[in-house]
Amino acid sequence: MSQTDFDILVIGGGPGGYVAALRAAQLKLSVGVVEATHLGGICLNWGCIPTKALLRASEINHLLHDLDTYGFKAEQVSFDFKKIIARSRAVSKQLSSGVSHLLKKAKVPVFEGFGKLDGVGPNGRRKVLVTKDGAAPVTLTAKHVILATGARARALPGLEADGKLVWSYREALVPEELPKRLLVIGSGAIGTEFASFYRNMGSAVTLVEVAPRILPVEDEEISAIAHKEFEKQGIRVLTGAKVGALRKGADSVTVPVETNGKTEEITVDKVISAVGIVGNVENIGLEGTKIKVDRTHVVTDAQCRTGEPGVYAIGDLAGAPWLAHKASHEAVMCVEAIAGKDVHPIDVTKIPGCTYCRPQIASVGYTEARAKEAGYTLRVGKFPLMANGKALAMGEPAGLVKTVFDAKTGELLGAHMIGAEVTEMVQGYVIARTGELTEAELAETIFPHPTISESMHEAVLAAYGGALHF
Amino acid sequence: MSQTDFDILVIGGGPGGYVAALRAAQLKLSVGVVEATHLGGICLNWGCIPTKALLRASEINHLLHDLDTYGFKAEQVSFDFKKIIARSRAVSKQLSSGVSHLLKKAKVPVFEGFGKLDGVGPNGRRKVLVTKDGAAPVTLTAKHVILATGARARALPGLEADGKLVWSYREALVPEELPKRLLVIGSGAIGTEFASFYRNMGSAVTLVEVAPRILPVEDEEISAIAHKEFEKQGIRVLTGAKVGALRKGADSVTVPVETNGKTEEITVDKVISAVGIVGNVENIGLEGTKIKVDRTHVVTDAQCRTGEPGVYAIGDLAGAPWLAHKASHEAVMCVEAIAGKDVHPIDVTKIPGCTYCRPQIASVGYTEARAKEAGYTLRVGKFPLMANGKALAMGEPAGLVKTVFDAKTGELLGAHMIGAEVTEMVQGYVIARTGELTEAELAETIFPHPTISESMHEAVLAAYGGALHF
Repeated sequence: MSQTDFDILVIGGGPGGYVAALRAAQLKLSVGVVEATHLGGICLNWGCIPTKALLRASEINHLLHDLDTYGFKAEQVSFDFKKIIARSRAVSKQLSSGVSHLLKKAKVPVFEGFGKLDGVGPNGRRKVLVTKDGAAPVTLTAKHVILATGARARALPGLEADGKLVWSYREALVPEELPKRLLVIGSGAIGTEFASFYRNMGSAVTLVEVAPRILPVEDEEISAIAHKEFEKQGIRVLTGAKVGALRKGADSVTVPVETNGKTEEITVDKVISAVGIVGNVENIGLEGTKIKVDRTHVVTDAQCRTGEPGVYAIGDLAGAPWLAHKASHEAVMCVEAIAGKDVHPIDVTKIPGCTYCRPQIASVGYTEARAKEAGYTLRVGKFPLMANGKALAMGEPAGLVKTVFDAKTGELLGAHMIGAEVTEMVQGYVIARTGELTEAELAETIFPHPTISESMHEAVLAAYGGALHF
Repeated sequence: MSQTDFDILVIGGGPGGYVAALRAAQLKLSVGVVEATHLGGICLNWGCIPTKALLRASEINHLLHDLDTYGFKAEQVSFDFKKIIARSRAVSKQLSSGVSHLLKKAKVPVFEGFGKLDGVGPNGRRKVLVTKDGAAPVTLTAKHVILATGARARALPGLEADGKLVWSYREALVPEELPKRLLVIGSGAIGTEFASFYRNMGSAVTLVEVAPRILPVEDEEISAIAHKEFEKQGIRVLTGAKVGALRKGADSVTVPVETNGKTEEITVDKVISAVGIVGNVENIGLEGTKIKVDRTHVVTDAQCRTGEPGVYAIGDLAGAPWLAHKASHEAVMCVEAIAGKDVHPIDVTKIPGCTYCRPQIASVGYTEARAKEAGYTLRVGKFPLMANGKALAMGEPAGLVKTVFDAKTGELLGAHMIGAEVTEMVQGYVIARTGELTEAELAETIFPHPTISESMHEAVLAAYGGALHF
């Protein structure tokens, strides 16, 4: 007979949930995971990972149309769209199997089905009811329950994904064919990545954003450069734009878009709706508990505790930023706190964010505007990639690195990057923020030559009047 | 009449020399540069930069022969070798002009010619004689002279570059055509990069190393993975191999190579000799001064001072590691010390090294073996890239990240990486070493998902039994 009582039960097998389980097993706590669909969650199956496989394809397609720059030639360049999508799915599947293997190796049982809080038993253990179509419900018990049910695409009225003409990220990841004309609503990371992918594969793309600028959470200068680069690539970018009621035809959809008081009708083959995220708070047994929900997210304290003793929430379910690395970090912290270790609360200004469009975008900490609002006196440094030798050698001169320092203490408050490889580079600034390095220590750091990362050094020097190569 | 007396004169306009001049100008010191050939030195003109442009070409060629993996097709894939070389030269020229522009903007005069120490004038100023073919010698004077004349390829007896059959890096950067068969002697960064470039462009390549393993300064495990990956790519790798007297034919050269007591004759079209570096200590006026030379390098103290008051040496001339970023860092430090600022001596264990072969290699600090020799008790962490989601999504699963910690203090002693993008990633570990972060702080750092850089986090966790994804 299999185990039904645990130190910790985790509801949800995404990056928060499975990492919580792995860390609990490392700490010799008994732990089980309840997962309804795919181990790895949205991230592995319908998010971060498959989109990065697609990104690779779009980078290749871009390169194949720019071969002459590098001295190469090829005839009859083509791609098999189904094969590109299939590769993306295969990578997801491989990683999802990998998670299954890791849990097996750690001897963590996985219960297939929907998990739901179901009160407290007479022995004081929390009950979790697991239901699955075609199977009898099972009750598991645990001292601690971690809710990690994630989030899903927000469906605005009139913009609900219909799987045919209007896509959410799910349909956008597994298209039957490349849409000729595409309109993307919302220019956060998800919308921007799809706009970039489809444009680089050859679709005519319009990117619509209701805010005055695209990528509204990024530093304004980064948004402005992204806007310019996207337009260079042929993406039509509409900001301060309001979308009216869609008119669906048999094979196309007409979207009224209002900008500056004027409305234009845009007819496309597909619409991608990427207007935000809502937490999966339904049907997990929150009713009648002391767990509070605020705008679709479970309210937690700095150690991921909910209002109900012994119940925790992590990851997307617990609110922004909706990032897998925030979820897995919370997972580790939450489990370590349960295990009685000293833990540090998460500081959101030390969580990097990446957008895998072309050029890539990565940032951490305060934007210049936010730092000013927070009352800091600033020193700001900037370095354009066109002054960087490696960027030129690679043929990737578009981009900027920008640093924001507290003029009083020299603390690095934020760093903002757009350009080739910046998603792999930003961790250096995150390490600097975590280690509380000042500008003096960053200036003393020897960055390897020739790398694009030297721009990170120059942007530090620039904040203090010492940039060498610009 | 132009200025002839300066606070600082710099002999040599490479990355050490021109950076020294730019920093001096920032600090309001009067400064001039004497340069005989190209601003930017070997690095910009015959080293780091043009090789990175070639690397880009070889990456593209590799990709064009692997398109099917990603769902792409192309017919009649070809390259124009002259165009590839021309692009590499154009990038070098652009950057060399960039240096010229930076110096002009900083109002630093550049004197074309060979600079040579020429004693001390009656006013106590140091004299520098500048000579140039077809022009009258000019004497300049300065309070301080910084020698930055760099280094050149070592020419072993019998292995001297002849520009036809035997190449140094110079000829290897501007070949008339792609050699069908190539033998590279020496598997340091330079030899390895050329072996990788030519193999990826289609040459049959043999890489010969006298030491028991290739890339002998790298951690042993990194060398072993590089060896395996190179062999997979079809590079023939011979270690513990001694090269005998070359026999040159009209269009080919036969190289006797002895391994394990057996000698094999290898006939190739070209040989690249990459057996080390010697400092340019000749004809710069060292004779009769108190400046000491040790094995072709000028002996300096921690602030780059030579035995002669007011004379400094930086960069390759002052010895290993022969890296442009070491030269430019010394340049800044040396000038700041002259300007009376507090400076910190360079710690070579905080200087990263990069090799731009495929897969890339990057490292900083102690190898596992060196750390053991130094008496540390170690904790070592490893994470293979095949367990990293982004590496899989990009189709680049080959590689490893390895960390070496002091078990007593948690100090990161060294980090060693092989795989895609590691040259852009290593700065994170350099920042960690400069900021003296411990494993606990690195473990607390939130690395962005999905990136290859997450492997840097996992390799830290692995050293303390907490790796999550392996």
